[in-house]
Amino acid sequence: MINRINELFNIKYPIVAGGMVWVSGWRLASAVTNAGGLGLIGAGSMHPEVLREHVARCREAVEGKTYGVNVPLMYPEIDTLMDIIAAEHVPVVFTSAGSPKKWTAWLHDKGIKVAHVVSSSAFAVKCEAAGVDAVVAEGFEAGGHNGREETTTMCLVPAVRRATSLPLMAAGGIATGEQMLAAEVLGAEGVQVGTRFALTVESSASEAFKRLCLNLGEGDTKLLLKKLSPTRLAPGAFRDAVERAENDGATAEQLRELLGKGRAKRGIFEGDLDEGELEIGQVASLLRGTEPQSAADVVAQIVAERQTAVDRLIK
Amino acid sequence: MINRINELFNIKYPIVAGGMVWVSGWRLASAVTNAGGLGLIGAGSMHPEVLREHVARCREAVEGKTYGVNVPLMYPEIDTLMDIIAAEHVPVVFTSAGSPKKWTAWLHDKGIKVAHVVSSSAFAVKCEAAGVDAVVAEGFEAGGHNGREETTTMCLVPAVRRATSLPLMAAGGIATGEQMLAAEVLGAEGVQVGTRFALTVESSASEAFKRLCLNLGEGDTKLLLKKLSPTRLAPGAFRDAVERAENDGATAEQLRELLGKGRAKRGIFEGDLDEGELEIGQVASLLRGTEPQSAADVVAQIVAERQTAVDRLIK
Repeated sequence: MINRINELFNIKYPIVAGGMVWVSGWRLASAVTNAGGLGLIGAGSMHPEVLREHVARCREAVEGKTYGVNVPLMYPEIDTLMDIIAAEHVPVVFTSAGSPKKWTAWLHDKGIKVAHVVSSSAFAVKCEAAGVDAVVAEGFEAGGHNGREETTTMCLVPAVRRATSLPLMAAGGIATGEQMLAAEVLGAEGVQVGTRFALTVESSASEAFKRLCLNLGEGDTKLLLKKLSPTRLAPGAFRDAVERAENDGATAEQLRELLGKGRAKRGIFEGDLDEGELEIGQVASLLRGTEPQSAADVVAQIVAERQTAVDRLIK
Repeated sequence: MINRINELFNIKYPIVAGGMVWVSGWRLASAVTNAGGLGLIGAGSMHPEVLREHVARCREAVEGKTYGVNVPLMYPEIDTLMDIIAAEHVPVVFTSAGSPKKWTAWLHDKGIKVAHVVSSSAFAVKCEAAGVDAVVAEGFEAGGHNGREETTTMCLVPAVRRATSLPLMAAGGIATGEQMLAAEVLGAEGVQVGTRFALTVESSASEAFKRLCLNLGEGDTKLLLKKLSPTRLAPGAFRDAVERAENDGATAEQLRELLGKGRAKRGIFEGDLDEGELEIGQVASLLRGTEPQSAADVVAQIVAERQTAVDRLIK
């Protein structure tokens, strides 16, 4: 597993833990980094000063190893956030939900490596033009906010591989070593894993949320809110309300009102399974019936499963 | 590539051409079988006596090699159809869109091998109980009629692999040898390829349909008609009308009226790109800008690409 992703980030395994809102604090990020992957802090749900504290703790915990921060580019106080990232010498930033043009050169100036998350090869080409160091191609099966194209990982990764020469990570539907190897066969050099790390011991998500997500069946998550920003959600009273509204032809404005503010925090962090927005990936159902594992166990298991899959293929 | 799928069907390569409505006549089916795969005739768009003729011609063309028929189980004159299949000694039947219980024993009695197409592992377990010989796990990215679960091939194949011990083919988003190998890594022993064969020279689809589908971009197909039977469609005036109606909250009844009868024939077979229902898979965009190939070239290319992907992995 020596490739451009390992070299770019100076990590042992090309396994990135997605920087997820209300999930990815310093505990999860540092645990993944210390296990040989790349842990990301999810800045999307943090006030700038909260991020500063998480970065400081993560840096201390990883003792010189590489960690990073995920920044959704529609973050309201993004200038303040980026100043903190630069001042704290964060080594890697993953950007998403916006144009890679705006911040890449600025981050590079500060010596920060930049990866950008895309849902189409057209966007990957823009990333290459913007000078990003690597892209994450994230398919329809991913949890939370999602592309409008609905292109699945099986179709997206080969398309992005053909469209750019950038180091490429796959995301969406990847929780096991077999899935990691399948993504590599499709042209990826590494993977970004969200759902499986969201349900680890070190994840900041509430126990109630983890328990719910570790007991989902196939077909239980749904991509909804397409008139606003397509979001994959686990079942619950709030999602039922969204689905009813959408079936009846609710407008974007009506959906925005129904969504209101702070629902992801309520659902994921506070464990309000009725009123919360429960963002999780389709692949959760493959973890059905398991208990939260440590992030280190997840990294080790993915690596071992991947090797078993390689051995099976060449036997 | 010696595995249970090859042995079950006595074929050289575990590559099945899906039996698609208005696409899969005897020409396509026999070309795939003669190239070492398994060609299926799509009975869903044929009157029983038309199927009899296609079976006779296919049998003659393949000179003893294995071919099959796909039967959607909601076919209106299914008893007549099945009697013809038995009388003509069709060696293999793929069933879909219905319960595998009803016909499996009857077909086995006549010496016919049975595979069933599923969109969930729960349904795969039912297939095993019904005694089918193999299952096809078909993901969200597939063209035409599709499961309600929206589970992608990346998530579905490992789930079905865990749920049953049956010989397993993957479908949905598989058009290249890399994608075939990725599906094998996920636990499949073979693949059912639809879109790529639908756009070959031997496909019965109209030139206009093939041209349209060979020029789609990512995100151009959409899964619509979810209140009736979820169907993945290429863009066109009819699809625009469906989308507008669905955005406005159209009921199943209103959608049924809008759909009317015979639109798949109009779109796929007759090439009416405005009023027709244009069923094709998401993976079409990977073929963008190419010309229709022969089915034999497709089989050979998938086999060669797969080998290159194996070599790259073990180098």
